[in-house]
Amino acid sequence: MRQSIKQICRHVSSKTIFSQPSNNLSRKDIEKLTTSELLCKLGFIAQPNAGLVHWLPLGKGVLDNVNNIVRKRHNENKCVEVELSSISHSSIWDKTNRWNNNELFKIGEYCLAATAEEEITTLVTPYLNSYKKMPFIGYQITRKYRNEKRSRGGLLRGREFYMKDAYSFDIGETEALKSFNSMNETYEKIFNDLRLPWVKANADSGDIGGDLSYEWHIVSEIGEDDIVKCNNCGSCGNVERSHSIKGEDGKFVEESDVKYFLSKENELICIYFPKGRKLSMKFVKEEDLVDFNEQLMNKDEIINKFVENNEQNDGLVTIFRLIDKQVGPGTKMPDLPDNVKFNKNHMITFQELDITESQEGDHCDSCKEGTLVNMKGVEVGHTFYLGTKYSKPLEGNFIDKDNKKKPYYMGCYGIGISRIIGVIADILRDNNGLRWPSIIAPIQVSIINKNTKKNDDDVKFEDTLVKELQNKNIRVENDDSDKISFGKKLNKSKIIGVPLQVIVGVNEGIVEIETRGCLFSEEFRKIKEIEGDKWGWEIISKSNVEKHIVKKEYASKVIEILLKDM
Amino acid sequence: MRQSIKQICRHVSSKTIFSQPSNNLSRKDIEKLTTSELLCKLGFIAQPNAGLVHWLPLGKGVLDNVNNIVRKRHNENKCVEVELSSISHSSIWDKTNRWNNNELFKIGEYCLAATAEEEITTLVTPYLNSYKKMPFIGYQITRKYRNEKRSRGGLLRGREFYMKDAYSFDIGETEALKSFNSMNETYEKIFNDLRLPWVKANADSGDIGGDLSYEWHIVSEIGEDDIVKCNNCGSCGNVERSHSIKGEDGKFVEESDVKYFLSKENELICIYFPKGRKLSMKFVKEEDLVDFNEQLMNKDEIINKFVENNEQNDGLVTIFRLIDKQVGPGTKMPDLPDNVKFNKNHMITFQELDITESQEGDHCDSCKEGTLVNMKGVEVGHTFYLGTKYSKPLEGNFIDKDNKKKPYYMGCYGIGISRIIGVIADILRDNNGLRWPSIIAPIQVSIINKNTKKNDDDVKFEDTLVKELQNKNIRVENDDSDKISFGKKLNKSKIIGVPLQVIVGVNEGIVEIETRGCLFSEEFRKIKEIEGDKWGWEIISKSNVEKHIVKKEYASKVIEILLKDM
Repeated sequence: MRQSIKQICRHVSSKTIFSQPSNNLSRKDIEKLTTSELLCKLGFIAQPNAGLVHWLPLGKGVLDNVNNIVRKRHNENKCVEVELSSISHSSIWDKTNRWNNNELFKIGEYCLAATAEEEITTLVTPYLNSYKKMPFIGYQITRKYRNEKRSRGGLLRGREFYMKDAYSFDIGETEALKSFNSMNETYEKIFNDLRLPWVKANADSGDIGGDLSYEWHIVSEIGEDDIVKCNNCGSCGNVERSHSIKGEDGKFVEESDVKYFLSKENELICIYFPKGRKLSMKFVKEEDLVDFNEQLMNKDEIINKFVENNEQNDGLVTIFRLIDKQVGPGTKMPDLPDNVKFNKNHMITFQELDITESQEGDHCDSCKEGTLVNMKGVEVGHTFYLGTKYSKPLEGNFIDKDNKKKPYYMGCYGIGISRIIGVIADILRDNNGLRWPSIIAPIQVSIINKNTKKNDDDVKFEDTLVKELQNKNIRVENDDSDKISFGKKLNKSKIIGVPLQVIVGVNEGIVEIETRGCLFSEEFRKIKEIEGDKWGWEIISKSNVEKHIVKKEYASKVIEILLKDM
Repeated sequence: MRQSIKQICRHVSSKTIFSQPSNNLSRKDIEKLTTSELLCKLGFIAQPNAGLVHWLPLGKGVLDNVNNIVRKRHNENKCVEVELSSISHSSIWDKTNRWNNNELFKIGEYCLAATAEEEITTLVTPYLNSYKKMPFIGYQITRKYRNEKRSRGGLLRGREFYMKDAYSFDIGETEALKSFNSMNETYEKIFNDLRLPWVKANADSGDIGGDLSYEWHIVSEIGEDDIVKCNNCGSCGNVERSHSIKGEDGKFVEESDVKYFLSKENELICIYFPKGRKLSMKFVKEEDLVDFNEQLMNKDEIINKFVENNEQNDGLVTIFRLIDKQVGPGTKMPDLPDNVKFNKNHMITFQELDITESQEGDHCDSCKEGTLVNMKGVEVGHTFYLGTKYSKPLEGNFIDKDNKKKPYYMGCYGIGISRIIGVIADILRDNNGLRWPSIIAPIQVSIINKNTKKNDDDVKFEDTLVKELQNKNIRVENDDSDKISFGKKLNKSKIIGVPLQVIVGVNEGIVEIETRGCLFSEEFRKIKEIEGDKWGWEIISKSNVEKHIVKKEYASKVIEILLKDM
């Protein structure tokens, strides 16, 4: 047709004004910079205000590439792409009781979309009116908004960010779980495509059909989340939300710790749990016992407030005691403070609760055999089975086979696109600068001539190579300015994370290809063995840089093979 | 590489839940619907609230295609694509005095971006620090926001909408005008690509270097703007903002009309202009004489207010008289009302002003020969030369050759992407439904088999044809459900505006290609003449539908030629 989409999608250049200062960064400079500073310095993004991001050409290149992987894998799973308005009316958020949320940016009766369960359910209901039309999974890759108080630098916790959100609609629980599973498979494919060390962490509350959900983490030292992984079966969980076997049945710890909370009715809640373990705040939150401002008070303050509030009805107010299952006969438990007057008839005790976080050394609750080890993770995705939680209040109904009106069974599935980019930049950078997996690198190959004044043969060769690579859909840039030195060009290509530098002009018949971080996969080694001699392909490894020397006429073949391997 | 971008960009289907009701629309139904209702009914968009739009798969297909044309033409002009945050801080809007604007959606100290002069100037300043780095043109295609009180249905006047906005930065006026001209050429190419009847309307105030600007209109009966076009040289202008020759020098009209305004200092302004012509409110606005709430009052109210305000200093307040150049000796002018006391010494008169709108029959101010005719237009773009209007208050400076700090000379350039889509849908629809120019049609070709049970040869042929067309980057859909009748498939393809329907299974050796609105260009006719016989290519025209009969083996060639011609 009249235009080539290929060309348009790939128009990313490192030669814009935004990427020029990168020439002057030394290794020491690089080390000192945080990843978000590095991304800014190298012209990937800019940060106009806390939690806000401008995407500059190189960053937009990464963004487009990540989006295309996400899009491809969703389309393969028959998900339908839409783009919902980012402005949403309070009326539908009122129905699901989510309007009173401090994290929503509000403009009068409207909010900026943070997620889209309400909008998409309202949108699809008139169309999705019969059982025949399901399953249906809709998704979008759009900007989302959150009035984030703790907004961090860069791409990790923004107030405006790119998110992929998908929503599945099914006629019943079995069908909905099938959609849920297909989406989890889609996520595995996406994170494998991105070549990331990921874990799928169990985040369910235990009862299927209730809150089945997984958190998807990239394993990284910079992670904020604590994850445990079984050394036997490999299953993972967030320490706050997963279950583990903490000791043996009927065997209790020596000493118990206690935490106090005030219920919304001003009752005292005393939670007893093994000393040295961490109470799972998630448990307390889910039970919705307490006003969470209380959390900020220390023990004495809570007790004083309780006593003060109940001066009138001394000893007649209920005291709840919640006791962890590792606390029992033989465990030393702290006494209630002296100023708390209580009546044993008004004391209610729950025992055998599992209310502490999982931790290293616990036994795995999945295989019952392995032991858990600690990891740090950054949450970049979440998959939820929702059941009828949203469809019921939103009246998202369809007519089933039996001619009866029934609510959809739903799931929702998020991926933090901006966040993934931030994490990838962070975990792969080295002292030469950024390093992008070739599949998302905005530029995959830099062609650089050793001589600032090129000879005609080289010019011809470079032009041919560019065309050959473009025909293979490889994102290539020929840095042919004659005002910048070879060293500066090479350095810039490496620092911005281009996977391959093809150096022309070293020797008449060959090119040198520099690269960091090939996998040397089996497939790779096989081809090298078969074709190596014919292609004149030699590899010289030096610290974490490899140099591939190859005959000019086979350059594009080797480039293609290398890119697949990194 | 591991994924094909081609495939991803083109994944648009008419088989989603959103496009199913279209089967049931009759011609009469279609006629009754407004274009925005039709777009909703056919699953292109949905409208959750006034001025807000959800983009559904077919609509998103059109959007992506329009964006790609805009992107391609901007890249050709060396513009650099970025994506700025949609949240912008008041501090920079305060500098340009644009924060106090009721049309900005505000969230505390932030607003939702309506335009980006402030953000992009602030963004580029640290990078664009030397004359060597200019010219620079940055652009983005992103959602914009306007708290629009008159938000109309559909895509024409939204509160959230897609806009392409570009900004040029140059070292001086001459260079900036070069950028301005290059952008105007870019716009011509874009509107030509879209095959739209466009006019570039002069909207300048006359003095170069001040407010040089063009409005880009699509000519359409549904337009809100009045445009005049010279029947000799073709130059166009918005009646409110353009200049024309209104009669002969020294020849005055018989009778004058008058309009009264109060200045901000409570002086009376009387404007005299030819009876029957329209006063250009733009003129009054630009001179900034009056508080514009006054406009809402009628003559008597204004006079009464003036008299009341000036009771204390009767006859000593200045009265301004502004007189159009067609009002002079011999023209009958209305007297001031009796209750206005005035003193001739406090009366100031300006004569020879050009303060009425252009209108049909005026002479062209460009060629001085032609006569103006009326047209209606929808404004879809605007190009502005800005000079240092924004760079000065924002301190957007660079170091020039002479080592001195100087402000950028800027231009800004907008295209209303959502709006263009709404206008195209509106002006091209006919009683068969929508009609998309092939270059932006989400689906360009529907392959439909006449028989619901296909024979093996047809299945094989269709598969081959799909592959051939996809290799040519043609967006093709094979509607192969065996539950929907041929007639319904054909009807649906036409109603959603697919340019070509390829009908298979009519006769063994041939296919029929149905189409509406070929141009029958010279190029087209030439190929038909040369190859027609060999390809077995016959054309049968019937009302506004053409049927092309062609041998199967030449189907993909004819399809390619037809798509280029529509």
